Amino acid sequence: MERPRHQGMAKNTYMRWRLPLVCLLWEVAMIVLFGVFVHFSPEADAHWEEEKREMNLTSDIENDFYFRYPSFQDVHVMIFVGFGFLMTFLKRYGFGAVGFNFLLAAFGIQWALLMQGWFHSFKSGKILIGVENLINADFCVGSVCIAFGAILGKTSPIQLLVLTLFQVTLFAVNEYILLNLLHVKDAGGSMTIHTFGAYFGLTVTRILYRPNLEQSKDKQGSVYHSDLFAMIGTLYLWMYWPSFNSAISEHGDAQHRAAINTYCSLAACVLTTVAFSSMLQKKGKLDMVHIQNATLAGGVAVGTSAEMMLTPYGSLIVGFICGIVSTVGYVYLTPFLESRLHIQDTCGIHNLHAMPGLIGGIVGAITAAAATEDVYGKEGFIKAFDFTGAYQTRTPSVQGGFQAAGIVVSLLMAFAGGALVG
Amino acid sequence: MERPRHQGMAKNTYMRWRLPLVCLLWEVAMIVLFGVFVHFSPEADAHWEEEKREMNLTSDIENDFYFRYPSFQDVHVMIFVGFGFLMTFLKRYGFGAVGFNFLLAAFGIQWALLMQGWFHSFKSGKILIGVENLINADFCVGSVCIAFGAILGKTSPIQLLVLTLFQVTLFAVNEYILLNLLHVKDAGGSMTIHTFGAYFGLTVTRILYRPNLEQSKDKQGSVYHSDLFAMIGTLYLWMYWPSFNSAISEHGDAQHRAAINTYCSLAACVLTTVAFSSMLQKKGKLDMVHIQNATLAGGVAVGTSAEMMLTPYGSLIVGFICGIVSTVGYVYLTPFLESRLHIQDTCGIHNLHAMPGLIGGIVGAITAAAATEDVYGKEGFIKAFDFTGAYQTRTPSVQGGFQAAGIVVSLLMAFAGGALVG
Amino acid sequence: MERPRHQGMAKNTYMRWRLPLVCLLWEVAMIVLFGVFVHFSPEADAHWEEEKREMNLTSDIENDFYFRYPSFQDVHVMIFVGFGFLMTFLKRYGFGAVGFNFLLAAFGIQWALLMQGWFHSFKSGKILIGVENLINADFCVGSVCIAFGAILGKTSPIQLLVLTLFQVTLFAVNEYILLNLLHVKDAGGSMTIHTFGAYFGLTVTRILYRPNLEQSKDKQGSVYHSDLFAMIGTLYLWMYWPSFNSAISEHGDAQHRAAINTYCSLAACVLTTVAFSSMLQKKGKLDMVHIQNATLAGGVAVGTSAEMMLTPYGSLIVGFICGIVSTVGYVYLTPFLESRLHIQDTCGIHNLHAMPGLIGGIVGAITAAAATEDVYGKEGFIKAFDFTGAYQTRTPSVQGGFQAAGIVVSLLMAFAGGALVG
Repeated sequence: MERPRHQGMAKNTYMRWRLPLVCLLWEVAMIVLFGVFVHFSPEADAHWEEEKREMNLTSDIENDFYFRYPSFQDVHVMIFVGFGFLMTFLKRYGFGAVGFNFLLAAFGIQWALLMQGWFHSFKSGKILIGVENLINADFCVGSVCIAFGAILGKTSPIQLLVLTLFQVTLFAVNEYILLNLLHVKDAGGSMTIHTFGAYFGLTVTRILYRPNLEQSKDKQGSVYHSDLFAMIGTLYLWMYWPSFNSAISEHGDAQHRAAINTYCSLAACVLTTVAFSSMLQKKGKLDMVHIQNATLAGGVAVGTSAEMMLTPYGSLIVGFICGIVSTVGYVYLTPFLESRLHIQDTCGIHNLHAMPGLIGGIVGAITAAAATEDVYGKEGFIKAFDFTGAYQTRTPSVQGGFQAAGIVVSLLMAFAGGALVG
Repeated sequence: MERPRHQGMAKNTYMRWRLPLVCLLWEVAMIVLFGVFVHFSPEADAHWEEEKREMNLTSDIENDFYFRYPSFQDVHVMIFVGFGFLMTFLKRYGFGAVGFNFLLAAFGIQWALLMQGWFHSFKSGKILIGVENLINADFCVGSVCIAFGAILGKTSPIQLLVLTLFQVTLFAVNEYILLNLLHVKDAGGSMTIHTFGAYFGLTVTRILYRPNLEQSKDKQGSVYHSDLFAMIGTLYLWMYWPSFNSAISEHGDAQHRAAINTYCSLAACVLTTVAFSSMLQKKGKLDMVHIQNATLAGGVAVGTSAEMMLTPYGSLIVGFICGIVSTVGYVYLTPFLESRLHIQDTCGIHNLHAMPGLIGGIVGAITAAAATEDVYGKEGFIKAFDFTGAYQTRTPSVQGGFQAAGIVVSLLMAFAGGALVG
Repeated sequence: MERPRHQGMAKNTYMRWRLPLVCLLWEVAMIVLFGVFVHFSPEADAHWEEEKREMNLTSDIENDFYFRYPSFQDVHVMIFVGFGFLMTFLKRYGFGAVGFNFLLAAFGIQWALLMQGWFHSFKSGKILIGVENLINADFCVGSVCIAFGAILGKTSPIQLLVLTLFQVTLFAVNEYILLNLLHVKDAGGSMTIHTFGAYFGLTVTRILYRPNLEQSKDKQGSVYHSDLFAMIGTLYLWMYWPSFNSAISEHGDAQHRAAINTYCSLAACVLTTVAFSSMLQKKGKLDMVHIQNATLAGGVAVGTSAEMMLTPYGSLIVGFICGIVSTVGYVYLTPFLESRLHIQDTCGIHNLHAMPGLIGGIVGAITAAAATEDVYGKEGFIKAFDFTGAYQTRTPSVQGGFQAAGIVVSLLMAFAGGALVG
């Protein structure tokens, strides 16, 4: 770094050789593995013309690319600009947050394409990738960005990369258990992305506890523009969250519905965040940290249920509750976690991702358990929960139970994985 | 606020209880009303599979979601990042502008979904919402963001919320009169959004006149980065305006045409803004405020006509004129309005929205009146102006007359409404 | 400018009349030429209903607008926000970079619509424009933004506009030779946009050599936030590059494939950039300039081949190499070019666009030469390289030869054109 006083990137002299070596070796490994395993999915392959005939598609517009590419780009912005800039609200880590987020995400998406590919897109010895795989890789890395928010300022770049490697691997395993073994729905990732990512990060930061960290944080002077940069992150996450929750839902009504539910939940969440931030602060002032973070909890909390028939009214209620829970968490829970449990949650991800993620999992389980053929229509019911093949006899209440089991599995994986890696 | 010296949010001790109460009660009211009234539109409902069969649609891609979602996201960015950051060019209000814009927009879209829903999407006791309703709610709130530009720094958060409540209500009434009663076309909202929003805000700021405001403004020191933050707002508004004007146009050629016309108008507007800014300033320097604002007037001014056969050449002419009008307005009219009419137009919305909005209404009326079956084709003519049912005998010149009437109605509603609320 | 100390816009008193005159006369010329030549393409014209029947299209969604508009908006953001903010890493030129980039791009797209229209969309005396023309105009102006990066700080606004005028003209000629006469594929513009634009700019800056420029640059103080603003530019270019390379590819699999290949190449490029930046700096620190620039080289270098069957694995290799080449270029080549060849490459475009562009051309030639019917499928092969009509007997190796010829032509045009204009 030319201007080392400005960022938190470690200035370890070791780094001179270790970081380059890790990056280069890793990338060579990626090239070899991609060479052996990764092919284009039929919709991205030049044989598409023949494929189209076989699938009786009449137009190029029915390529999955046109269903998902706009959402993919929005998700891409959330991962790289959203998460990166959100963390600039910590003055000291401004550039480091954006730069390291960039590095770990670029590093992680390649491994995620492979790991998720082996579990979900593996066909006769090849991983077939299309736009949905790119979205899923971004999602997986999103979970790493969340965990990064808890340990920001505590680790060297190398440690971050190793952490990314492990977390992506565990993410893929957990996702496989939930989506394939338990046949759970979680399109917006309340459980797989937020709950898992946040508790993984919190476990790691607990293990890396450094008693003197807090003091050095207090010394930082206030830099006004940090708040505006952080708002860029906040707003891009907030605005594009409907794309996040709808990106990999079924074509048609499910994507449409997921976007509407998320839009409603986020709007409600802003109001209760402002209300409680103002109520809990001295003299009724608003705390910028709440506005920058808690307003997003509504998006996290409808991650599982947004594609279901949650209804706009139900979404408002979820957003209403999460704005409150998240803001109260910033005021009371974060100091408690730090002083009593020695969990230094740098960005407050427990309030933004962990608790809303849990709520999202529970709301998803309830919404699934409450589903009826009357509300969904006969075909819509089967389509929404994919009650086909081995699952055609599953009832809504059983589905609700499996959804709840998904929460527990995600939590266990996060604690065990975080402890192992930490 | 932790750093009160940096923003304009009022630090009223009253606020401690009033702001939270207003936010919470309002949100509870929203939940109740959404519970009673709001359902998904058929395209977002799980019954879509059956609906598809009834409508003879062969593919999920024909869901309105895929026609409008990318434009919706662009409009969403314009409302939250565009309008929010544009106002940071006023150094004193940097964070307050972005934060309050966020609050009032999140507050307003919920009420807009209801108000516009009752007028436009009400079916057997239910408001049916889909992606088009989300766009319209964003549009409605855009009109509030415009008005906010005039009164920035003069009101408390509570007053802003009350203002939003009234303006959204009046917006929906005005929109209903124009689109339904007068059968006027205004897809990009030159009249309904810009003219109405701007004159509403100007009327309110006239009533809230505070003689000493100007002085305190002069005291502000210069903060260089404000200009770069403001350019983020400017550029996102400028780049995404083609989406704004095409977002709710008819599927197919109308959306396509609206984007092209807006692109052309905006490009021309930049050149005449630079020309007149340089010409009217001492020593030929460019004024940043002009670059940040007047370059956008070209988008406002083709709001009504962009989806019509305005032609790229006509669009260039409109952009050409509006860059000049808007820049001249900043140099001569804003000081005049302030000193003589006691209208303190903080962000100069009279130049960016009011005048270009009026021009847009007039251009729309002329373009409609000049329409011929030769230019549009027989079917295209009927489709473009929706001359069906009760309107199948309406002629272009009569349509032009009604378009002109729409301008007058919008102005009257803005003045009356602004006076009432102020 | 009100705050002249903050930007690099020239404060020539001459400018007072010359800049306005140039802008106004130019815009009037544009209006006249658009009036004579430019019409809507059938897909943007109100006659579309009839057109649809003739083309046997069953749905409005098959309008080219829906295939390309989301990519167009991403490209638009890259040109105006991406290139503009990227250049703010030079502290002294912060606002000037963004503002002038805005001016020259708005100026250039109008002329590009005409020049490219005459060459590619001219039909019975009219230029027919649709969304693809808007993308191409943005691409053409992108090449000017690249050249602008080399001469930033050396020219007055008027000179910039004249330069834009000439470069757009030459760009269109070069593009016509490559795409039409040589029948070369270059959807992402490695040759037409990057190689041509960069060598054009470098030739111009060589001719405008000013010995004392470097010193004044050294005097600039460090401004921390510049790095965060520059990262906004970097990230938007990086994130949206898949849209850039796929925006004008054939509908369906080609667009899909181009996005995937670009995504892979860019991810790999980040890792090798970090590795070499860390390795070549004293004490292993990372240089922000590398992170902000060299990470993008992977997108440039798959510009030609992304829509071909490059495979994800091939894309990783290209990104791997380009991260290294570009970073090494910043460390060793830029100082060498300046001291020995008197080429003052302000933003280092030789490393970001010139060399990766050349590599991209070569990779494209090799990928084309290596194409087989086995890999592409019989129909896919013909569709991918458009081996129809006069070209139906062209073989892959001949195509490879023509691709290579395209590189040479682009280089010659850039040198000759740059020398002429400089």
